[in-house]
Amino acid sequence: MDTAYHPTPRTTPTRYRDRARYDRETVHRILDESLICHLAYVKDGLPVVLPTIHTRIGETLYIHGSSGSGPMLAARLAGMPVCVTVTLVDGLVLARAAMHHSMNYRSVVAVGAARIVEDPDEKAQALHAVLNHIRPGRADDCRPPDARELAATAVLALDLDEVSAKIREGGVSDDAEDLTLPYWAGVVPVRLTAGAAVPDADLDPATPLPSYLR
Amino acid sequence: MDTAYHPTPRTTPTRYRDRARYDRETVHRILDESLICHLAYVKDGLPVVLPTIHTRIGETLYIHGSSGSGPMLAARLAGMPVCVTVTLVDGLVLARAAMHHSMNYRSVVAVGAARIVEDPDEKAQALHAVLNHIRPGRADDCRPPDARELAATAVLALDLDEVSAKIREGGVSDDAEDLTLPYWAGVVPVRLTAGAAVPDADLDPATPLPSYLR
Repeated sequence: MDTAYHPTPRTTPTRYRDRARYDRETVHRILDESLICHLAYVKDGLPVVLPTIHTRIGETLYIHGSSGSGPMLAARLAGMPVCVTVTLVDGLVLARAAMHHSMNYRSVVAVGAARIVEDPDEKAQALHAVLNHIRPGRADDCRPPDARELAATAVLALDLDEVSAKIREGGVSDDAEDLTLPYWAGVVPVRLTAGAAVPDADLDPATPLPSYLR
Repeated sequence: MDTAYHPTPRTTPTRYRDRARYDRETVHRILDESLICHLAYVKDGLPVVLPTIHTRIGETLYIHGSSGSGPMLAARLAGMPVCVTVTLVDGLVLARAAMHHSMNYRSVVAVGAARIVEDPDEKAQALHAVLNHIRPGRADDCRPPDARELAATAVLALDLDEVSAKIREGGVSDDAEDLTLPYWAGVVPVRLTAGAAVPDADLDPATPLPSYLR
């Protein structure tokens, strides 16, 4: 398998093409780090985009949803054209010039036809991976789904084929003639951080905090 | 003006309707807190969703972009149907049952026809607000755009009319019969946090850190 995805018209940015990345490792890392994705599809000719939980197994992106939710119902009919976007914000870029303000970010856009996962084994593996995507190790440390719960849950699969990443990193890019202006310029890094775990009120106080949450 | 938006078929969730909110104050707060939005539109019948920077003035959502970018070019022709979604992740919800795992989040979905802002005053105000959205106070503490820079920048406007928020908060919701299972259950709060500001290498070391970054 190639180490990179092949750019197509749909995965070539119209702007800042130098920020585009196609190597699989970069794409995978961004998909794996993000807690959520934004799933877009077309309904009655109009765009819809909703946040949802995803995971990745190899070169397949799995998206979790309820069997009764809008996109799952639409996808049941046929392969549904989707665009899935994941975005990690890494910093605020404050330039001397108003128009050079920006954000540091890493994003992935994946397009293609999504299918509903029908095979029970593939579905079980995908749901297992969704739990481990929340926290690695969690899938084996909870009650597995029963038949009724599995029926109420749907999983969409999108093969990672038409995919690109886009990365803006580093410092400000002010024009040379602006460098002596008297404004502060630089980057404020931002990141998603986890606070202390809050146990459920009904939890037996003797239950230890799992290692994957420490 | 009503204190709430009116639900429509497009802004009524198919699932978890009890999580939907329509009051303007809740919607505004989520839009204002989020650093980015995800803008979806339809191109050649296929969905596209891209991350971008937004701001809000009253009941109008402004979306910043390059004049040459895909959505801006498409919107120039006519009012462009869009769906703009903003999502704040607040926590990982780890239930005893695999299928009750969830996230705490606050999201807003706004749909409608976006227009390119042509009026120079409205455009200037929107760009000013975009800068203050990054950090309140920044817009007046940098070099304003010149005519060439303004021409290279486009602003999309979407009137906030068909809008809903969706909120999942609180603790785990396990079934009663699962409460004595030996698995840890609870919530791990997450939030976007800012690190120490990193000054540009070319910045005069005597330049103080602005108060809005402290």
